[in-house]
Amino acid sequence: MKARVTVYPRREILDPQGKAIRDALTRVGFPGVDDVRAGKSFEISLGTEDLQAADRQLREMCEKLLANTVVEDYSLEILGGAGAQP
Amino acid sequence: MKARVTVYPRREILDPQGKAIRDALTRVGFPGVDDVRAGKSFEISLGTEDLQAADRQLREMCEKLLANTVVEDYSLEILGGAGAQP
Repeated sequence: MKARVTVYPRREILDPQGKAIRDALTRVGFPGVDDVRAGKSFEISLGTEDLQAADRQLREMCEKLLANTVVEDYSLEILGGAGAQP
Repeated sequence: MKARVTVYPRREILDPQGKAIRDALTRVGFPGVDDVRAGKSFEISLGTEDLQAADRQLREMCEKLLANTVVEDYSLEILGGAGAQP
């Protein structure tokens, strides 16, 4: 089973990388860009086909390794199946 | 209109960051992870509500700034609307 984990800075946290990208986009000819948030995306192939087990494992991976939950939020998406949000 | 741009290394390109994350996940107790690909995700607020214009602008942004199309693939997703794939 394949899943996608997306990790973004929390809404209330400043996102200087996103701001820099917005400014760069404005400079190269996209003045209509209001806001950019920059995050990470992981596509993970899991050995299980059990949706609940996959969801539990992915949350654990995020808490342990993929996201710093003090300053980042994560969301999970099963590719080609039902989605899940934390 | 909000959109999400996801940028991944091309399939045929080695992804050492993804490999390192897979190995780390195995070490912290997830031996069932077969493969990890590591990419970037950008959430972009555009000043337009025109789907076609948004799609065109996002592709231009990817070609000019967000992705290095020699070694990276990108995909576009309109959040809360119709999706688009390159």
